[in-house]
Amino acid sequence: MIKHLCVIGVGLIGGSLARVLREAGYVGKITGASRNPEHLQKALELGVIDHYDTDLSSAVAGADMVFVSVPLGAMGAVFTTIKDSLENNAVVTDAGSAKASVVEAVKAATGEIPAWFVPGHPIAGTEQSGVEASFPDLYKGRRVILTPARETGAAAIQKVRAMWEAAGAVVNEMNVDHHDEVLAATSHLPHMLAFALVESLARMSEQREIFEYAAGGFRDFTRIASSDPVMWRDVCVANRDALLAMLKIFRADLDDLAAAIEQRDEKKILNIFQDAKSARDAFSE
Amino acid sequence: MIKHLCVIGVGLIGGSLARVLREAGYVGKITGASRNPEHLQKALELGVIDHYDTDLSSAVAGADMVFVSVPLGAMGAVFTTIKDSLENNAVVTDAGSAKASVVEAVKAATGEIPAWFVPGHPIAGTEQSGVEASFPDLYKGRRVILTPARETGAAAIQKVRAMWEAAGAVVNEMNVDHHDEVLAATSHLPHMLAFALVESLARMSEQREIFEYAAGGFRDFTRIASSDPVMWRDVCVANRDALLAMLKIFRADLDDLAAAIEQRDEKKILNIFQDAKSARDAFSE
Repeated sequence: MIKHLCVIGVGLIGGSLARVLREAGYVGKITGASRNPEHLQKALELGVIDHYDTDLSSAVAGADMVFVSVPLGAMGAVFTTIKDSLENNAVVTDAGSAKASVVEAVKAATGEIPAWFVPGHPIAGTEQSGVEASFPDLYKGRRVILTPARETGAAAIQKVRAMWEAAGAVVNEMNVDHHDEVLAATSHLPHMLAFALVESLARMSEQREIFEYAAGGFRDFTRIASSDPVMWRDVCVANRDALLAMLKIFRADLDDLAAAIEQRDEKKILNIFQDAKSARDAFSE
Repeated sequence: MIKHLCVIGVGLIGGSLARVLREAGYVGKITGASRNPEHLQKALELGVIDHYDTDLSSAVAGADMVFVSVPLGAMGAVFTTIKDSLENNAVVTDAGSAKASVVEAVKAATGEIPAWFVPGHPIAGTEQSGVEASFPDLYKGRRVILTPARETGAAAIQKVRAMWEAAGAVVNEMNVDHHDEVLAATSHLPHMLAFALVESLARMSEQREIFEYAAGGFRDFTRIASSDPVMWRDVCVANRDALLAMLKIFRADLDDLAAAIEQRDEKKILNIFQDAKSARDAFSE
């Protein structure tokens, strides 16, 4: 049970966690916090939070769990602001989709890797953003990866794990660098491709007509290009090295395919497509 | 009305057209034809066709409409086989997703661009293939592009247009080369990216684990990598030049984004993502 949850950044991610924990009866009071009173007012009206505070250091007072769901670039400032106002028993966790940079930010703010901080990443979301898009089932059956350091307290890890399980998620632990590589591959790289493709097409002169003849496959393929630009800019900066490494691998493979098309190497083209289809079909099952 | 429809290649595309025309009472008899009796037997059992023939030249006898829905690489052989067996009043159309190569194939088979052939492309499909995946609503509200030449007969165009409208589709006419460029952008390029991405990840050593942590965005993004490899190999060969041109544009844009990430150029990254989001959001509406 969480007596008093403080959610810093009440958007899709933070709002959905607040909703499900309330629905599950797993939380007493919920405070929403951010620098933006309009977002917080909306969250209050929707019943997602009980009250709000635009001063982060007073917002965390009394909270035994603090959930930081802000873009990666805003993490450092949050930790610096809240670190001296946390209760002694408070546990802090986050939802950043790259983890090394968050651990660095906590370390820079506090001078150490504190026992009270559990780096976390719920592998869930939609291309929507904002508290209006939040819903209690977002985490149902989804994975949450925790990347604790040696310094992280065992009781803090256990408290965060129990919270996510109460939200319906499946919790795994993983090394920080491994997390960042896996996510660069399965999430960050695909987002880059979708953003880059839609931008390519939008700049082509016939853009309206081009989109007019796009079918369902294109719709699915480019859905993630509607994701929050600020959040994704921060992901690029925060997970720069792993993302650049994946981009390099992908570009080499794309160049290989383009060369096969140029050379009319039908056998090679077919092999690539068959391998991809097998892997994708296996993933579906 | 079509008295006797002959569908050559009874898979997702051909099977769905047969189903909807039957449902609409727009067709008398439906003959299925292909080189594969097992597929045809399945189509017969599903009630999609009335009977079948593995000899294409006898299959088209008596048909006033012939619908060729085979992979692009098989088009030439089909036209060569059927051209001397067509009824005088027969109209032939196809479903190839690149059109210049089909027009070339007809020309090579008959020595001319015949008045009875209407090049067509229904912009519809799923990542599934085979007659089992066919369903009557596949074309509902979808676009069908016809790319008639000067030599194409006006009555033939009208008959094909009426057929697609009976299937619930919206019919447009377009120049062949323009069709092939637009489709390279909205369909062929995205399929290349999806196939290349899934193949990249499948070859990475931690492949199982990587797919395990993939979320909904990845699922949508890579769905089209489950598409039929043979059909897509043929698209690459048939629409080679337009596709290579689009691949070149995309790679330049992706390199631009990668350079911005490498240089930590947050402003440029944000601009790219914002432009893409605006275009994709506008497309959704």
